[in-house]
Amino acid sequence: MRDYIKKDPWNIIEEGFDPALNRISESIFSIGNGKMGQRANFEEKYSGSSLRGSYVAGVYYPDKTRVGWWKNGYPEYFAKVLNAVNWIGIDVHVDGEELDLATAKVESFTRVLNMREGLLQRQFIATLPSGKKIQVRSTRFTSIVDADNGVIRYEVTPLNFSGSVRFTPLLDLNVFNQDSNYDEQFWIEVSRAVSNGKAALTGETKKTQFHVAAAFDLALSLDGAEQALQAETMSQEKKVANVVEIQVAQDKTVSLFKFAAIVSSLYSDKTQIQSDAEKSAAAARAKGFDTMLKEHSEAWVQKWAECDITIEGDVAAQQAIRFNILQMNQTYTGEDERLNIGPKGFTGEKYGGVTYWDTEAYCLPFYLKTTDPKVARQLLVYRYKHLQKAIENAAKLGFKNGAALYPMVTINGEECHNEWEITFEEIHRNGAMSFAIYNYINHTGDSAYLAEYGLEVLIAISRFWRQRVQWSERRNAYLMLGVTGPNEYENNVNNNWYTNLMAQWTLNYTRESLAYVQQQHPERYAAIMAATKFGEHEDELSIWADIAEKIALPRDEQTGVFIQHDGYMEKDLQPMSAIPKGEYPIHKHWSWDRILRSCYIKQADVLQGIYTFEGNYDKETIRKNFDFYEPLTVHESSLSPCIHSILASSLGYEDLAYKFYLRTARLDLDDYNHDTDDGLHITSMAGTWMSVVEGFGGARVKQGQLHLAPALPKQWQSYSFRICFRGALIKVAVTEQAIILENESDVGLNLSVYGSEKSLPARQILTVARD
Amino acid sequence: MRDYIKKDPWNIIEEGFDPALNRISESIFSIGNGKMGQRANFEEKYSGSSLRGSYVAGVYYPDKTRVGWWKNGYPEYFAKVLNAVNWIGIDVHVDGEELDLATAKVESFTRVLNMREGLLQRQFIATLPSGKKIQVRSTRFTSIVDADNGVIRYEVTPLNFSGSVRFTPLLDLNVFNQDSNYDEQFWIEVSRAVSNGKAALTGETKKTQFHVAAAFDLALSLDGAEQALQAETMSQEKKVANVVEIQVAQDKTVSLFKFAAIVSSLYSDKTQIQSDAEKSAAAARAKGFDTMLKEHSEAWVQKWAECDITIEGDVAAQQAIRFNILQMNQTYTGEDERLNIGPKGFTGEKYGGVTYWDTEAYCLPFYLKTTDPKVARQLLVYRYKHLQKAIENAAKLGFKNGAALYPMVTINGEECHNEWEITFEEIHRNGAMSFAIYNYINHTGDSAYLAEYGLEVLIAISRFWRQRVQWSERRNAYLMLGVTGPNEYENNVNNNWYTNLMAQWTLNYTRESLAYVQQQHPERYAAIMAATKFGEHEDELSIWADIAEKIALPRDEQTGVFIQHDGYMEKDLQPMSAIPKGEYPIHKHWSWDRILRSCYIKQADVLQGIYTFEGNYDKETIRKNFDFYEPLTVHESSLSPCIHSILASSLGYEDLAYKFYLRTARLDLDDYNHDTDDGLHITSMAGTWMSVVEGFGGARVKQGQLHLAPALPKQWQSYSFRICFRGALIKVAVTEQAIILENESDVGLNLSVYGSEKSLPARQILTVARD
Repeated sequence: MRDYIKKDPWNIIEEGFDPALNRISESIFSIGNGKMGQRANFEEKYSGSSLRGSYVAGVYYPDKTRVGWWKNGYPEYFAKVLNAVNWIGIDVHVDGEELDLATAKVESFTRVLNMREGLLQRQFIATLPSGKKIQVRSTRFTSIVDADNGVIRYEVTPLNFSGSVRFTPLLDLNVFNQDSNYDEQFWIEVSRAVSNGKAALTGETKKTQFHVAAAFDLALSLDGAEQALQAETMSQEKKVANVVEIQVAQDKTVSLFKFAAIVSSLYSDKTQIQSDAEKSAAAARAKGFDTMLKEHSEAWVQKWAECDITIEGDVAAQQAIRFNILQMNQTYTGEDERLNIGPKGFTGEKYGGVTYWDTEAYCLPFYLKTTDPKVARQLLVYRYKHLQKAIENAAKLGFKNGAALYPMVTINGEECHNEWEITFEEIHRNGAMSFAIYNYINHTGDSAYLAEYGLEVLIAISRFWRQRVQWSERRNAYLMLGVTGPNEYENNVNNNWYTNLMAQWTLNYTRESLAYVQQQHPERYAAIMAATKFGEHEDELSIWADIAEKIALPRDEQTGVFIQHDGYMEKDLQPMSAIPKGEYPIHKHWSWDRILRSCYIKQADVLQGIYTFEGNYDKETIRKNFDFYEPLTVHESSLSPCIHSILASSLGYEDLAYKFYLRTARLDLDDYNHDTDDGLHITSMAGTWMSVVEGFGGARVKQGQLHLAPALPKQWQSYSFRICFRGALIKVAVTEQAIILENESDVGLNLSVYGSEKSLPARQILTVARD
Repeated sequence: MRDYIKKDPWNIIEEGFDPALNRISESIFSIGNGKMGQRANFEEKYSGSSLRGSYVAGVYYPDKTRVGWWKNGYPEYFAKVLNAVNWIGIDVHVDGEELDLATAKVESFTRVLNMREGLLQRQFIATLPSGKKIQVRSTRFTSIVDADNGVIRYEVTPLNFSGSVRFTPLLDLNVFNQDSNYDEQFWIEVSRAVSNGKAALTGETKKTQFHVAAAFDLALSLDGAEQALQAETMSQEKKVANVVEIQVAQDKTVSLFKFAAIVSSLYSDKTQIQSDAEKSAAAARAKGFDTMLKEHSEAWVQKWAECDITIEGDVAAQQAIRFNILQMNQTYTGEDERLNIGPKGFTGEKYGGVTYWDTEAYCLPFYLKTTDPKVARQLLVYRYKHLQKAIENAAKLGFKNGAALYPMVTINGEECHNEWEITFEEIHRNGAMSFAIYNYINHTGDSAYLAEYGLEVLIAISRFWRQRVQWSERRNAYLMLGVTGPNEYENNVNNNWYTNLMAQWTLNYTRESLAYVQQQHPERYAAIMAATKFGEHEDELSIWADIAEKIALPRDEQTGVFIQHDGYMEKDLQPMSAIPKGEYPIHKHWSWDRILRSCYIKQADVLQGIYTFEGNYDKETIRKNFDFYEPLTVHESSLSPCIHSILASSLGYEDLAYKFYLRTARLDLDDYNHDTDDGLHITSMAGTWMSVVEGFGGARVKQGQLHLAPALPKQWQSYSFRICFRGALIKVAVTEQAIILENESDVGLNLSVYGSEKSLPARQILTVARD
């Protein structure tokens, strides 16, 4: 836990330069636009501790699996979104002396992430070892209008001398992934070019042979007046640069503008990719810094209009929620069905930048309620396109007849993860894939998606569940043995309640969906029946019904709660508060076996199931389970507190709800888990948003209708959030007295507030008293 | 399964050279003397497929752990007995043309392991590419009299020409371990020396800084007449050699004698280790080949007199059992308490050449009954010396108060293994350590061992069990959660019956042992009480008694068998015969999760417990459990069939007993598991011996008395075995009609045969009718 970020509603602010915090700030101040992302590394050389990170969406490397003891079925590689060409670099020399914040005396340092406009700004006064003092200001953004462009304005003002300022703007492909399994370098150079004011460099990834071309165009101004550029050029293996030197009088400011373009072979033909990058950089330069900045800022302001949350009376909470929303939007825009959301987004290397069930369970609800449905739809199509790979993945594990097991971790549909207890056993992820289809349709009404894509996925997943269970005469039930639930602090357990629940639900939903498509899309139905050879081997419909009816979902007689898995109730059930001081988090202090045989729950498990199907349980059941499982949960996954926060809100446990909200909201800003230096917890940020909108706001979609039941945390004066729903954009403001609903769109909406039906015509405001 | 080894009672014979079998033969024909071991690699250069292996006992390297996903408590390294200096090499050129069996035409090739005398012999006729034909004969042994010496006689006879024969006897430290985790080379050179007829080379292991010096002295004879040696010398980094050239007339034989010495810093001071090796090589040369050979052979004949098993009427079985006894004796002699027995002995790199519970559970019974008790005692002392490390190991996992967890894999007492489900959870090994103490005392009567060493180990292990269980109100029992039993095809199960049984037994035996030492060795008792702070934290004796009384050891009501672990009975219990053809062994065909959720048992588990405490169960209980678990057991550990064979014998299931015996006896000779090329299954060879002596022979030691109940497999005419017991050496011959007991020692013995007390005075023979 740290507290060095200054509180501000719209800005993330670091004041004063502390090298020990640099890697944390590099994560926090990251910028991105869905197509690329950039950690907040300095432009100028920095010899202190830094994790340089530039990432290009979808460009990955299959890093050979590292394993202690091989198990049949392990994947050959772990896909990693690669640290890519350094396009931000601008080395700076003053009268031949290099600027390096590790050796200079630094004053008045500020680093600001301007969230409203999506800008990274930095300024400082540096006294070089020679005593020369300069002021530096830089502004950087990855444009969300021209998504191939990253733009930098870098300004230097001599404060106590007149002399030469030399800029060396560069492109550098001597880049390593710190998490490389075998210390390999993943890039080879394809081509490079450099001339006065311009440079370009193209690299190719080993094995996957992606090409990424970077280019820049430069402009220079002195005291606001554009200068003709007289650059020397530098060209060496994997690196190109310009060297621009100019005399600057004391207190005058020289500004270098670096218009970069980063283009990948996902979008550009390899034969002309470098020229595409060069053209894009030239176009950006032609548009000019001010116009680029203006368009970019306005687009951000527009985005905020759809998804902003305001909080009055708690600037820390306000700052945090915006930070989370900003990062979600910087990571994924839904423009390309081949892309998805890594747990660290573009802010670090950890987890390989690839896709987990986090997407379906946490991110999808965020995008469903904050933007156009097509964004969420792309996340579903991503999985649909991987269906064949998921079937192959299941076949590797002995499943047949088109059964699909979606991978735990993937970028291209192939499994990357190699820990048997997770890779092979944490199969509840398959349930998240099927529930996502339901969730999407429930929010959007786009039932046709079932016919187009959804049903095939549902059939394949249901086939998996059908083969994964076994009938037990002794229990008179279908059992699912050897699984790992969301609570990864239990491995290889039998009848994880959440997993069995997701299987049961999927089998039922698939049967409903089959009936729906048969009725509404008979031709498509016939095609799917033929393609999947449905029912040819066995009467799938009736077997699925039988399993759904008889799958083990035991409730404990003594406590009345659902049993997390067989045997859980026999553990020594001590509340988390019994863990000795200094031994928390347990994953850092206890050996794995000790964690496994303890009662402690890493993240919501039974409660994840109750959250998912809240409507199926009465309040008393929810309360019993929450009261039982909450004290046993250690929340050592960043994905956990939000679920507890939402359930606590719905049970009226306001203090608890707020406690968990705080924990998730400022996780990275306050470096709560001492790991922000690795990158931000992007996917759990969606959970933070859910804590506000679903938790405090009580937002639910039931049978296609929006329901609200807002509460106001007593720490806040008021708050507001927005929901995009079925073409309408509703702003919900919650004060002590009332709920003010404002329809900011041209589409009218009927909704439920505290259980009462309300009609909210286009562009109208409706005030409802607080419950 | 292969069948290329010729059947012979005293020899292992390969006829004809098949390069595809070479690595298998290199394992099978391995020689060793407890201090060093050598795979049956060729002396001359061989460019075909080969796993060169020379091993020096106790010389290991801590190879940095390779792991996919780190877990708290994993060790930093895996200790590996290193592939060491190649001392056998003799390159051969004929008129300048190199001999290489990969390029020559090879006829009349035979490789023979003369088991009676402990010799490796090879001969062949090779036609070189030039057409020159030579006959080669080599004889090699690692002396069991002069255990630092390896000796080679290498003979060449030109068959169709007269010309020069050039020998290049060498020492070479350019040696790699194929199983190196990071492709490191583990040796650095310390020094070398070479002169006419002599060479020496000293290497140091990285990190552990063991020194190993090798030296040789040469002799040369032509047609039986010793020749003065005129050698050129070769010396380069990590390699020294002589080059000896001699003119040889057609049909005359030149013989090179290589007297090697290999000395490690376990036994020699580093400052003079190379000179020690040189002196040892010179002494061997002075003794001469014939004398060295004669002493070595006679010592082997003497060894056989103590431990031979004869089988009439089944030469394959006869060959196999001798092969197993030979390899056990080549691997471990009990002369050094710092040494132990790796699963592959000195015959390969797999499993690192380090120590598993195999030693206590399988090897100890072999040495207890086949040789002087001091050999078995050394195996116990090995663990005693590691007690402090075992306490530290347990502390790493959160245990306190002097609780010890012996490592799964070790060479120096530190844990090497890094698979949580085995490293942290396969804790039944602790029971094997305590049972070994009982087993040793039961066999030898050396109760004083308890006071000297045993009790401290027992206390520490009992403390571990005490902390490892937890009380369950619901079950009204102590439970042991999250373990892996001997059946490694189940991970993280609760209440593995075998593990709980071993815990219960240890707690009781420790209490008895405390009482015994208190009474018989009060001073030592007081010292142990003080050193262990016994009872200072809690009333250990009464808590242990309570746990032993109430630990969960459930019997299934429906079937009456002991439940392998919680939930096992709910599995889909299909006999092994239900596994589809082509999917066996399942560990090569099924993914790990599929194996785990199946009912299949890798190796004896409940049955291991029943075998260990056979006397505690009535025949009906044993039969029920055997009948239930046997069909579910896939025997995918080489340690499994012997236990089933012994129990089948005791139940009178003769065919089954014989089937399992065959499977274990010729495991390596017939390359049953297609892995003999990696090395021999040394520790399971002890199990083969147990199958005969405990299985067919029915030998047991009960309350310090030897019991016999021999049966005769119908495939055999007769068989005999020997047992060393309490100073007596008893030969037991079993024919169709009778048991002939011969006391080959000067110590009389009372024993039980088929339940009747018999007295067998020194040097007497007693004939008992077959039961």
